[in-house]
Amino acid sequence: MSSTRVWINARLATFDPTVEAAYGALEGRALVVEEGHIGRIVPLETLDRAGMEVVDAGGRWITPGFIDCHTHLVYGGSRATEWEKRLKGVPYQNIAAEGGGIVSTVRATRALTKADLLAASQPRLEALMGEGVTTVEIKSGYGLTLADELRQLQVARQLGERLPVEVVPTLLAAHAVPPEFAGRSEDYVEHVCGTILPQVAEAGLAEAVDVFCESVGFSLEETRRVFEAAVAHGLKVKGHVEQLSNLQGAALVARFGGLSADHVEYLDDGGVAALKAAGTVAVLLPGAYYFLRETRKPPVEALRAAGVPMALSTDLNPGTSPFASIRLILNQGCVLFGLTPEEALTGVTRHAAQALGRGDSHGRLAEGCVADFVLWDIDHPAEIVYSLGTPLVAQRVFRGRPDRPLA
Amino acid sequence: MSSTRVWINARLATFDPTVEAAYGALEGRALVVEEGHIGRIVPLETLDRAGMEVVDAGGRWITPGFIDCHTHLVYGGSRATEWEKRLKGVPYQNIAAEGGGIVSTVRATRALTKADLLAASQPRLEALMGEGVTTVEIKSGYGLTLADELRQLQVARQLGERLPVEVVPTLLAAHAVPPEFAGRSEDYVEHVCGTILPQVAEAGLAEAVDVFCESVGFSLEETRRVFEAAVAHGLKVKGHVEQLSNLQGAALVARFGGLSADHVEYLDDGGVAALKAAGTVAVLLPGAYYFLRETRKPPVEALRAAGVPMALSTDLNPGTSPFASIRLILNQGCVLFGLTPEEALTGVTRHAAQALGRGDSHGRLAEGCVADFVLWDIDHPAEIVYSLGTPLVAQRVFRGRPDRPLA
Ligand SMILES: [Zn+2]
Ligand SMILES: [Zn+2]
Repeated sequence: MSSTRVWINARLATFDPTVEAAYGALEGRALVVEEGHIGRIVPLETLDRAGMEVVDAGGRWITPGFIDCHTHLVYGGSRATEWEKRLKGVPYQNIAAEGGGIVSTVRATRALTKADLLAASQPRLEALMGEGVTTVEIKSGYGLTLADELRQLQVARQLGERLPVEVVPTLLAAHAVPPEFAGRSEDYVEHVCGTILPQVAEAGLAEAVDVFCESVGFSLEETRRVFEAAVAHGLKVKGHVEQLSNLQGAALVARFGGLSADHVEYLDDGGVAALKAAGTVAVLLPGAYYFLRETRKPPVEALRAAGVPMALSTDLNPGTSPFASIRLILNQGCVLFGLTPEEALTGVTRHAAQALGRGDSHGRLAEGCVADFVLWDIDHPAEIVYSLGTPLVAQRVFRGRPDRPLA
Repeated sequence: MSSTRVWINARLATFDPTVEAAYGALEGRALVVEEGHIGRIVPLETLDRAGMEVVDAGGRWITPGFIDCHTHLVYGGSRATEWEKRLKGVPYQNIAAEGGGIVSTVRATRALTKADLLAASQPRLEALMGEGVTTVEIKSGYGLTLADELRQLQVARQLGERLPVEVVPTLLAAHAVPPEFAGRSEDYVEHVCGTILPQVAEAGLAEAVDVFCESVGFSLEETRRVFEAAVAHGLKVKGHVEQLSNLQGAALVARFGGLSADHVEYLDDGGVAALKAAGTVAVLLPGAYYFLRETRKPPVEALRAAGVPMALSTDLNPGTSPFASIRLILNQGCVLFGLTPEEALTGVTRHAAQALGRGDSHGRLAEGCVADFVLWDIDHPAEIVYSLGTPLVAQRVFRGRPDRPLA
């Protein structure tokens, strides 16, 4: 087995903005992989294959591995029967009174051993990987105690150690006020800032801190306090903002130089400008928009006009987006939000990499980037986005290592 | 290998209307299969297992095999790049002028050999089967000449011979006016009624005849002529009706005692009453509603109130519903059209069976029915409908034969 592999006879959708063509497409090049990174992309005729293992892609398209930059996939339980009640017309208040909503997932998650939590979560991550995902962000937020938040983040890390995928962990202790702090939101925020966040940072279990900034979540001022604690402990920030109303959360994220402002259905022009100025990514989550039957769409045209990078993500979670499918979200991004297939695919490659602070190393086929990519049984990149159901992945490559031989 | 198999330790979602519980649920019963049919469903303690092969379902749920009662899955080509143009804002007229639309699929389908058409279609059918589909309707309608319609129907039949699935073929020659008859719609209808339909009936290649009754398809009067020819040749009728406008197509289907009226977004109260009186099934197709960004929903509450059976189906086709996923359609039926999970699942079992004239033998777990069923890794039937992405099928049984051992 040689340490240098080269993929030939492929069409490369590089998503490299320095390549003029749509999708950053290149043909007639060899993709040379060395030490888990993309070494060179060179004209085939200039390639010296000596000592290289050659993979003939058979004319297939290659894209960067997909990056799902916003998930809550480590959790216990299911909310299917709660959803069924909603569809039968049971009012939300009754469901909440019966212990439904996010608290039910917190209860179910806390009740699992670490091994059982891992076993429950792994099939969801594997489903994403089966559609070409090579990097996934995973948030905590169903523990809401120091021990339970640590446990959720430890399971996220274990998933990344166990499977050929890169896991990027985020602390979302400010997801909801836990039952123990009912009516004492400020005290819980104090506990997050003074205890949970410092210890998670100390343990190196999160790269960033997220807050659910919403009337039914945490106020703008509470969000600001959590962000300040995050920065003080060397963590980056991002936010669930402007999903159901406009609290000016996106502008706050931008003021902290945040990685991403997520959801943003109610984002206004000032928020768009703030994201642009700060270089913050707008992460669109059409799965939740669809599942909650929302009607207010994110301001895609304004974001596009301003040049704010737009990412797309599953938001995989049991309450509002129980969809372990990045292709579904790509399709919904186009059908529901009006993205083009190229914008959608850029949203799970280059822009999603930027949303995770990995814009220099991930999400493109370019020299020096990690060798995470996917070979597709398609004739055009739009096909990945257009249809659902039929599998299209011919080979998934993580850090230069293919998951299967080509048929 | 014994000829009698029995599944024990399962929860049965029978969808048998004589069982009172939600989903027709039964526990503590043994499901006895003989000669490819369900022989008996008996209390476990009364079972004499002598000579039987016993399958321990391990507490899993069993549903009837799913029935996808409206598909166009035999076709050539892809419409992904046409869709991309639409998303980039190219007007439909320009796309049509460039040869796009249904005519492009007709051209691509005609261009394939029978073997290539089969190879192109099989992965779509296999994707449906992987989610528990055991019976699938397949329409012609991308040939639009005698030879090409016959060929499409022959490929549909071959798929059923090659794979463990029941294929129900439908002639949809009146899908569009082919280029050769441009501007001569009446002549084409004459050709359908006088030549294509009789020969397809003679060859035994279709059970029913379908018409696209719409301003952009065929008029009500043209539809009536095709239905009369169908009845004259002993074929049942069904229709694509009231999708984009109301031509009173559903009432016409009902007048002919038709199997199903499909789409029905613009169905009015008179149409609902006509379907009820005739025992015709309303087939809802949320995939096309979603993909075309329609806003007018079928009158679910009126259909429910009238007691018209509602089925759900993928409408799998390259132009308006490129989704080879029955679970996606179940989910969309609830999220977009407001069905309950039980209504949705009834729509791909008992009601879908009725839509294919198989109400007596398919779509229920009941004595005498075909032994087509699915074992699911779930705790509640609503879970099949609620989430997407993670595979849930533990075992798929067709005519009593399991596709895999249980893990
Ligand atoms: Zn989220
Ligand atoms: Zn159709």
